[in-house]
Amino acid sequence: MKLNCDLGESYGAWQMGLDSQMMAHIDMANIACGFHAGDPLVLTQTLALAKQHNVIIGAHPSYPDLVGFGRRSMQCSQNEIISMVHYQISALDGMAKNIGLTLSYVKPHGALYNDMMAKPEVQDAIFIAISQYHRPLKLMMLAGNDNQTLLQKAQHHNVSLLFEAFADRRYQDNGQLTPRSQLGAVLSQNEILSQVQQLLSKGTVITDTATEIPLSADTLCVHGDNEAAIALIAQIKQLCIKSEFKNQ
Amino acid sequence: MKLNCDLGESYGAWQMGLDSQMMAHIDMANIACGFHAGDPLVLTQTLALAKQHNVIIGAHPSYPDLVGFGRRSMQCSQNEIISMVHYQISALDGMAKNIGLTLSYVKPHGALYNDMMAKPEVQDAIFIAISQYHRPLKLMMLAGNDNQTLLQKAQHHNVSLLFEAFADRRYQDNGQLTPRSQLGAVLSQNEILSQVQQLLSKGTVITDTATEIPLSADTLCVHGDNEAAIALIAQIKQLCIKSEFKNQ
Amino acid sequence: MKLNCDLGESYGAWQMGLDSQMMAHIDMANIACGFHAGDPLVLTQTLALAKQHNVIIGAHPSYPDLVGFGRRSMQCSQNEIISMVHYQISALDGMAKNIGLTLSYVKPHGALYNDMMAKPEVQDAIFIAISQYHRPLKLMMLAGNDNQTLLQKAQHHNVSLLFEAFADRRYQDNGQLTPRSQLGAVLSQNEILSQVQQLLSKGTVITDTATEIPLSADTLCVHGDNEAAIALIAQIKQLCIKSEFKNQ
Amino acid sequence: MKLNCDLGESYGAWQMGLDSQMMAHIDMANIACGFHAGDPLVLTQTLALAKQHNVIIGAHPSYPDLVGFGRRSMQCSQNEIISMVHYQISALDGMAKNIGLTLSYVKPHGALYNDMMAKPEVQDAIFIAISQYHRPLKLMMLAGNDNQTLLQKAQHHNVSLLFEAFADRRYQDNGQLTPRSQLGAVLSQNEILSQVQQLLSKGTVITDTATEIPLSADTLCVHGDNEAAIALIAQIKQLCIKSEFKNQ
Repeated sequence: MKLNCDLGESYGAWQMGLDSQMMAHIDMANIACGFHAGDPLVLTQTLALAKQHNVIIGAHPSYPDLVGFGRRSMQCSQNEIISMVHYQISALDGMAKNIGLTLSYVKPHGALYNDMMAKPEVQDAIFIAISQYHRPLKLMMLAGNDNQTLLQKAQHHNVSLLFEAFADRRYQDNGQLTPRSQLGAVLSQNEILSQVQQLLSKGTVITDTATEIPLSADTLCVHGDNEAAIALIAQIKQLCIKSEFKNQ
Repeated sequence: MKLNCDLGESYGAWQMGLDSQMMAHIDMANIACGFHAGDPLVLTQTLALAKQHNVIIGAHPSYPDLVGFGRRSMQCSQNEIISMVHYQISALDGMAKNIGLTLSYVKPHGALYNDMMAKPEVQDAIFIAISQYHRPLKLMMLAGNDNQTLLQKAQHHNVSLLFEAFADRRYQDNGQLTPRSQLGAVLSQNEILSQVQQLLSKGTVITDTATEIPLSADTLCVHGDNEAAIALIAQIKQLCIKSEFKNQ
Repeated sequence: MKLNCDLGESYGAWQMGLDSQMMAHIDMANIACGFHAGDPLVLTQTLALAKQHNVIIGAHPSYPDLVGFGRRSMQCSQNEIISMVHYQISALDGMAKNIGLTLSYVKPHGALYNDMMAKPEVQDAIFIAISQYHRPLKLMMLAGNDNQTLLQKAQHHNVSLLFEAFADRRYQDNGQLTPRSQLGAVLSQNEILSQVQQLLSKGTVITDTATEIPLSADTLCVHGDNEAAIALIAQIKQLCIKSEFKNQ
Repeated sequence: MKLNCDLGESYGAWQMGLDSQMMAHIDMANIACGFHAGDPLVLTQTLALAKQHNVIIGAHPSYPDLVGFGRRSMQCSQNEIISMVHYQISALDGMAKNIGLTLSYVKPHGALYNDMMAKPEVQDAIFIAISQYHRPLKLMMLAGNDNQTLLQKAQHHNVSLLFEAFADRRYQDNGQLTPRSQLGAVLSQNEILSQVQQLLSKGTVITDTATEIPLSADTLCVHGDNEAAIALIAQIKQLCIKSEFKNQ
């Protein structure tokens, strides 16, 4: 189980995240491509950091909304989405090659990610964008109870998927995340470690109705904005390493 | 002698240039990369047009100045210039590959071009950016009386050059363009055709002091914003074709 | 019946519309405020043109979406909408005062206009923004069969309304515009003149089911992107002048 | 002697500065207007904070360079500068009026400030912009040995000036700041308090050649990015209050 994290989200004079610390603990970096965060200099620096820590890199493309940090849904056409995704992953891909790195996956950011999971026409646009890219890239999507449906659709587009689970979010019986607006949607530190442990050992989570449901994920999404979060990620990483050792 | 032209300079709802007509007459398209013009959808459309007309494609990167159309010099650091050039040429390069095209050269736009010709630190940044790119790209620079100096510098950076002359601009004795602020700096239609003819047949131009100076160029820069300009370009193209035929 | 038109929609090097010609024929200019079009220099020039032609000026604020020309709905919070409207109308208002003009109304642009008519939370945000402005400004909304409902809501917010009809769009029985996706949604030149004549003389329109419905409007929205459109607007203006003369 | 500070420099999801803490210690807030920092929502929040702390407000307009934070000189025309300054101060002025505040001065930001002090054509553009504004606003400039020259120029444009000194920067014999590139250009905490004390009591500073020169300032520029800086500002404020008390 690999840990993935959003990185490279500084912009000009504005710093965000503790990227150099985070890189030491994670396996996969979702790197902002300039549309919600990440100017060209930040991309250069983030790629250098990923290389230094031998982290797998993915593109984190977004709607063009700097002031909204890509968190606001925008009613874009399929062609607009395909082109903006191509532009962003191409920019990152070329810059990665400049230092000998290979981009391996795409994880849409913020509202584009949510729209991909909720709106068929946006999901199609993302699949088309990746299938039309000049070399294969994996697409990271939210693991849930419909992995099979997504896998079929992805296969139709000849796209490979990576499924991610959230370490710090509670799940519903239908495999979806409990909305943040509901009490208990975001887990405490102990609950996070329990959920991770259960995902690793049994491939299940306990939902908000105390039901155990299967959740099949390739990677865990973690966030690290402060020292406490980074310490927690280090603990999660230890759980993953132990689990790998057992499974060998 | 190839004709090059700035294309793909529309942006969102704003149209600029008669790209589909121009593409039929030119050999090399300098394609805007999103920083002074050219949103992702425009890049997609411009690349498709270039493919249809079998035109050689180059990246036309700029300072990040949409409202100033990249025409205003900005005091950027070398690292900022290197990263912004990498970002822009990577974006175009990847999108070109998606439709089977290969980016072959870089021509900086507007103020970045002028600064490259006038300011050593900007010129160095451009050379470094291109030499660090993950595959060889040629750099287009202004032909003048110092081609040799530029060639040596380019060789030092392991960069190949393309020299361009201007069809519609008068030259000074030192090989530089007569500033637009001076009377007669921009040639009439007849003067343009004469200058092109002379460049093709003798490799020289007549300067603003009526002196004949050598000017060695690989390509001619032309502009086509209206029907008259396009008709003129068609005439220039005919001169080039005849010249090629003679030289065989 | 006054004619209103969207103006000042150039941006940097990109021209849009024939503003100087249009200003001679219209009564009210909806001036772009920089978020979908209109940089500061364009605002200055558009205001000068409005002054020269003695045209009533309104602010035309938008979602922050330059590349989408403000035509794409964005899921903004009420506070974001209130602040972005305040920012844009303040910018235009202050610049108008600099040359002795007084801003008199606000007409949201594109997707913000559509969302205002369709989504209660956006409509509320617009009402709040205008009611909180430091001096009274009228709000222009789409005339329909629910003018009364809008008038009551506006009164609740202490905002005065201007209702506009579209000269070139067909109406449905419910007083809404026939969607552009449907055949015949955009009127021919003759149909436009008939619709204007009927609005002026009887205060009604003929819908897409050939039914006559009342439509009470203070102003007609016209568009002028080319010479033919401007000639048509001149004809519409003549109809309005004749009608005024009769009604005196 | 009043303390002025740059505030409202967050943007979207990116936080900058400890504005709510700073506001308690300063007299004048230079508020970013959206071109280098400060989106509409940040402007709204910063104005509310200024009102709460009864702080005098000024506009802090910039070149349009978000990614460069307005720190990079841009070769703009006088008309471009005049319009961009009008746009930015109008936006802030109108939003201030909405909550009953009155904008009282303008302090250009970053590269625009430096260019105003160093380039006559930029300085003229700023004077013209402020003199053309529809009501009087003061202009804040750098105090030096040429206050008289600036005062005459300002009087010619009918603009009132505020001169500022820097608490944390060393001065040269000619009254200019010692460039940051030189050793000792930025003062230590003790040196800052000494410099402030001397400015308050004698109206002089000790230069980098240990010479005492007169420096006549209306306000002191302070910065507060962290807790230590804020504690220092609180000390500086105490010195100012004591000095005022003595002078009564």
